[in-house]
Amino acid sequence: MRPTAQSLDLRLGKLPSGCWNDITDVAGVLVGHETLSSGEGPLQPGKGPVRTGITVIRPHPGNLFKNKVIAAVHTINGFGKAVGFEQVREFGHLEAPIALTNTLNVGLVLDALVSLAVKENPEIGVSTSTVNILVGETNDGFLNDIQGRHVHAEHVWAAYNSASSGPIQQGSVGAGAGTVCFGWKGGIGSASRVLPPDLGDFTVGALVQTNFGKPGDLTIAGVPVGRLLLSKDPSGLPKDPRSQADQGSVMVILATDAPASADLLERMCRRAAAGLARTGCIFGTQSGDFVVSFSTVNTVDHNPRGLVIDHRQLNNQPRLIDALFQAVVETVEEAVINSLFCAETVRGRDEQIAEALPVAETIRLLERNQKQIEME
Amino acid sequence: MRPTAQSLDLRLGKLPSGCWNDITDVAGVLVGHETLSSGEGPLQPGKGPVRTGITVIRPHPGNLFKNKVIAAVHTINGFGKAVGFEQVREFGHLEAPIALTNTLNVGLVLDALVSLAVKENPEIGVSTSTVNILVGETNDGFLNDIQGRHVHAEHVWAAYNSASSGPIQQGSVGAGAGTVCFGWKGGIGSASRVLPPDLGDFTVGALVQTNFGKPGDLTIAGVPVGRLLLSKDPSGLPKDPRSQADQGSVMVILATDAPASADLLERMCRRAAAGLARTGCIFGTQSGDFVVSFSTVNTVDHNPRGLVIDHRQLNNQPRLIDALFQAVVETVEEAVINSLFCAETVRGRDEQIAEALPVAETIRLLERNQKQIEME
Amino acid sequence: MRPTAQSLDLRLGKLPSGCWNDITDVAGVLVGHETLSSGEGPLQPGKGPVRTGITVIRPHPGNLFKNKVIAAVHTINGFGKAVGFEQVREFGHLEAPIALTNTLNVGLVLDALVSLAVKENPEIGVSTSTVNILVGETNDGFLNDIQGRHVHAEHVWAAYNSASSGPIQQGSVGAGAGTVCFGWKGGIGSASRVLPPDLGDFTVGALVQTNFGKPGDLTIAGVPVGRLLLSKDPSGLPKDPRSQADQGSVMVILATDAPASADLLERMCRRAAAGLARTGCIFGTQSGDFVVSFSTVNTVDHNPRGLVIDHRQLNNQPRLIDALFQAVVETVEEAVINSLFCAETVRGRDEQIAEALPVAETIRLLERNQKQIEME
Amino acid sequence: MRPTAQSLDLRLGKLPSGCWNDITDVAGVLVGHETLSSGEGPLQPGKGPVRTGITVIRPHPGNLFKNKVIAAVHTINGFGKAVGFEQVREFGHLEAPIALTNTLNVGLVLDALVSLAVKENPEIGVSTSTVNILVGETNDGFLNDIQGRHVHAEHVWAAYNSASSGPIQQGSVGAGAGTVCFGWKGGIGSASRVLPPDLGDFTVGALVQTNFGKPGDLTIAGVPVGRLLLSKDPSGLPKDPRSQADQGSVMVILATDAPASADLLERMCRRAAAGLARTGCIFGTQSGDFVVSFSTVNTVDHNPRGLVIDHRQLNNQPRLIDALFQAVVETVEEAVINSLFCAETVRGRDEQIAEALPVAETIRLLERNQKQIEME
Repeated sequence: MRPTAQSLDLRLGKLPSGCWNDITDVAGVLVGHETLSSGEGPLQPGKGPVRTGITVIRPHPGNLFKNKVIAAVHTINGFGKAVGFEQVREFGHLEAPIALTNTLNVGLVLDALVSLAVKENPEIGVSTSTVNILVGETNDGFLNDIQGRHVHAEHVWAAYNSASSGPIQQGSVGAGAGTVCFGWKGGIGSASRVLPPDLGDFTVGALVQTNFGKPGDLTIAGVPVGRLLLSKDPSGLPKDPRSQADQGSVMVILATDAPASADLLERMCRRAAAGLARTGCIFGTQSGDFVVSFSTVNTVDHNPRGLVIDHRQLNNQPRLIDALFQAVVETVEEAVINSLFCAETVRGRDEQIAEALPVAETIRLLERNQKQIEME
Repeated sequence: MRPTAQSLDLRLGKLPSGCWNDITDVAGVLVGHETLSSGEGPLQPGKGPVRTGITVIRPHPGNLFKNKVIAAVHTINGFGKAVGFEQVREFGHLEAPIALTNTLNVGLVLDALVSLAVKENPEIGVSTSTVNILVGETNDGFLNDIQGRHVHAEHVWAAYNSASSGPIQQGSVGAGAGTVCFGWKGGIGSASRVLPPDLGDFTVGALVQTNFGKPGDLTIAGVPVGRLLLSKDPSGLPKDPRSQADQGSVMVILATDAPASADLLERMCRRAAAGLARTGCIFGTQSGDFVVSFSTVNTVDHNPRGLVIDHRQLNNQPRLIDALFQAVVETVEEAVINSLFCAETVRGRDEQIAEALPVAETIRLLERNQKQIEME
Repeated sequence: MRPTAQSLDLRLGKLPSGCWNDITDVAGVLVGHETLSSGEGPLQPGKGPVRTGITVIRPHPGNLFKNKVIAAVHTINGFGKAVGFEQVREFGHLEAPIALTNTLNVGLVLDALVSLAVKENPEIGVSTSTVNILVGETNDGFLNDIQGRHVHAEHVWAAYNSASSGPIQQGSVGAGAGTVCFGWKGGIGSASRVLPPDLGDFTVGALVQTNFGKPGDLTIAGVPVGRLLLSKDPSGLPKDPRSQADQGSVMVILATDAPASADLLERMCRRAAAGLARTGCIFGTQSGDFVVSFSTVNTVDHNPRGLVIDHRQLNNQPRLIDALFQAVVETVEEAVINSLFCAETVRGRDEQIAEALPVAETIRLLERNQKQIEME
Repeated sequence: MRPTAQSLDLRLGKLPSGCWNDITDVAGVLVGHETLSSGEGPLQPGKGPVRTGITVIRPHPGNLFKNKVIAAVHTINGFGKAVGFEQVREFGHLEAPIALTNTLNVGLVLDALVSLAVKENPEIGVSTSTVNILVGETNDGFLNDIQGRHVHAEHVWAAYNSASSGPIQQGSVGAGAGTVCFGWKGGIGSASRVLPPDLGDFTVGALVQTNFGKPGDLTIAGVPVGRLLLSKDPSGLPKDPRSQADQGSVMVILATDAPASADLLERMCRRAAAGLARTGCIFGTQSGDFVVSFSTVNTVDHNPRGLVIDHRQLNNQPRLIDALFQAVVETVEEAVINSLFCAETVRGRDEQIAEALPVAETIRLLERNQKQIEME
């Protein structure tokens, strides 16, 4: 795996990161990937080549249907096929793990997660209500035989079962195996931030699946890296891997251990847009840009007892809320950068190539810029 | 098939209905059902008994991906798993037929419709963007082995291929095979209304999948039929087929040949709530109440040519808009009643029974009430 | 004052009402009116005749800016000029009393409430933030010289200062002085419901300002009273007081002592539409139909201390939530009916008349219908 | 007036600006200011010092009530008191000029605009419907006696009457007289962009009232100017003019001559957030961040004739829509920077000072950074 931005001493934002600088710094959160890569050469629709996968985020290691987490969703631009949003909007609960995959595979992944929920909770649809599944997606059709819908139930279950805490794999893995971001190879990225002790020591983590952004627009720490790389060596440039402008999209997953209400989580979701904007995007018309957030505290029983419950909730302290928002912006920005830093060059269908971001050159550009700034 | 309300001389509302008093009165709209019914006796999760199905609504007989219709969605209460809403909200287009089925079957139906779209448009995900599928659902688990997800791709395709214009089948068919409404057997219902010539002669049609409402609350033409039937013969009452309060839901599909913008279609969607409310419901917390509407005129090319286009659109005439709203309220109300009138008694899993509404008795109650009113 | 529906033994819905069957049954809620009526004859724009007023709802008797209540808003149809909704949506707090008045008077009433808030909290805009004022309105221009904006600061303050608990005045008072509903004189109406002890004994109250509905569409307890009255004695009919279709609108204020979150309050707001629909309306295109709700428990300090707080909140019990929704539907329906029952005939500008609903005749129609139903 | 960013050769974004690089580059748009500045020394609430004003944006020079423009609104963060949003959301029309002022003055400004509309259209509330007024605001209480509500009707009318095309005044004028942005003196800013001829040559203009952002966070062209200025000369720093964190807010007004539907205008509004994010903000919890957009073509008659109308509308061309979005992002970013560049130091209540951004030093920082980037 290639190094993250932080491991190369690139600092983004003001807040310190958590232990692994990953969404898994939010205690309890587990992440699992299943990466599918097979075949070479010309696209044979329905057969391959395959460059795709699945990423599963579990808010806690337990039975999520029985112990739901408070959650929220937000749509920045709705050109996308994410499922499960309506019920989260209405109830503010998440009752199944979040899955990310490719666009046309959403149906099968949804179905596989129904199977999983039913297996763990045989009473679903028998003696209790049904289950709401949340699946996000981006279109990896530049590299992948997306018509083939190669992510099957066993891959979903494997990703679920292998989900673990600790540092997560980033780059061209799982649902990021075949994605493209600002013209370079995108993928899965993650980051975290920790609030200061006087603001509760809360952690915010983000995980992104990046498949968005116009080539040349990539901005890192304010430096127009995309343009600089392009102007320096136009021949070294990726051969416009996304001339099909309509294949954008980014999924953002936010986790926190702050006792946030669904309302506050929704407000946090909205700040993800600022993190994305810092990387250079304008939310293109054909980009499906969705955000999901959850808090790992205050879990909700599927069968609540009693009429009222005592909820420990964040107070409406501007300094605290603003710090959470700051953490969201910074983790989202850095998670996007990490998805680019960690992704390796992938050659897919029809020999199409998404090049890895030239990290050494990028760091050199950033260093010179930082030095310049320090000189001021 | 049992008779509709109108064929029994029950008049609801003020506007005249179209030729068949069905959603298919909107020229071009096709409806197809596939009903699945097999097995008896105790529930064997994953095996049966099966009392479910699929209903497909095609806005026009052509290739919907290439010629999209203007559309809108609205969520009255979001306890449901409908998919495809985000992109309709963002773009105001519908590019695939609408499918209705049972809750846990949404993934497989979604996938089957992807297959269908890909077959008709092999360029999807290869040389053009992907496709947004819209699937609605209600929970038929009182009668049906819902864990079994018995609706397979071939059923979806069969419903699609058999979709036709002309009078549609109503009651315990298609996606209404296993649903329950106000304690009686619900199902598919439909109705239409035609605006007067000086308001453009436009047609509005509704199709509903009814699985909502508390036993005893059924109201028809203002008469508390549910309560009256119950009080008369409590022993003849359905044995509380929905003690599981959380298994409600209704899907409403609206069609019109008026050149309505997506904004106006969304406003029409919101009026469906008034039609539902007239039947006695309060939009219970665990009911997934969703509305989709589309206009069959002003289709949108997948590959639009030119920067601007001339759209013939409805003027903002209060009388005209109000008449459209009135038509929505009346068609939705009558479609619900038709779903009850047409549905036959169904015995399903664990010998559980959803009784058909006793139509003769209902008509007698309504007639006495109407006579009473005429006496005034 | 004319009698309410309940005092005439008209029962609507299933739940029992509170002590006064008013919004003030929610402990702490105060209501005050200032009614303005002067001048006769032809309209002299800016001068009179005056048939308008102001109604103020105070969620508790204390300083609302310092101790805010949890609140929500909902727009059924947004053809209206209500102010203050954006901040309630974002924060879920209400920090100033709710005022209702006529459409063109919103600015002056807003300003008067700023004065009031500043007087009680001199630190506003000096050492702390500003204040969000919520004003609702309907258009009473059929009877009133609405251009004149006759509601001045002293009227607002008087209504605020005279606000009291106990049974409230209904009908042609306060903000209801000049409104018209289903062709009859509308006005202010109120009602309340109490949940059973095993569901917490919570109270829900509604107050409405009614200025909506098409003549002939009025429905009470399912009986098409509007049509019956019209057909019986067309000559006794009000001379179409609302031929100007665009002058509709209804404001609904909901109060509860249940510890509801802002999310739940918003869901309660949405159920007000079902209550309104039961009275016969279809939410016309030019009706501004707005709902505001608040809970009197869990007040929020303007300067919260500490990072977290323990909130006693309703559990997600379907039976409980559905009972609250039922209470909303019933109180809104009955509040509308009360606004009609209590309103007296008002003659206004240009000798235009809004007749009082003929209550005796209405009750006779309803009684015959009820008897008929009991006969079944 | 101090120079704009462009006049100092600072280029932001990729698209060319219009003739004046102002919102008035959208043909027909007029802007007028009335600046109020009087008094010195300690705050005497209700008396002064006064540092406030009003800015009026007229979409076209005609009677807006009779010829409404298509419009949309969007709330990024709703901690604000903007009025008139509900009806624009419902109808997509703007029928009165947009006014910007200070927070507590909204009521009086609203009322003054009602007077104006009534004067121009004496039939309002007499023989036709009422008028929807849209007022935005930010809190200038750091410099201004905001309790005093010093903007009176004559100021509103004067701003309206003096509104003109051509280059507009920016900085500490009109509604920007007393605002603070990223710790420096903010105010009114504007910018425009023109699409290439093959994308229709359409113009997009933005006008902002800036009162947001945390000191130190100001970012220009990716350069952390705020931090650099601060670190260089902490003593020269503004003395934390916004220690009151709750006094943020920004109003964004977008205009275009592209025939955009209300839906597309709403989508454009949402992109304003990316422009703001580029300047360093995170949309703090107590910032009221609102966007209004309108198109000057396709005006809507107050009394439309006929049932249908032919609308020339933008086609759904991704390249075209993305170019419009790009224009929104760039104009909003540059408008914010212009509000800072053009604003002069203002000393207000209690001798509190908002310093002008040190433009020469800022340009030096930016130049070194640009040169650095060019060196790459």
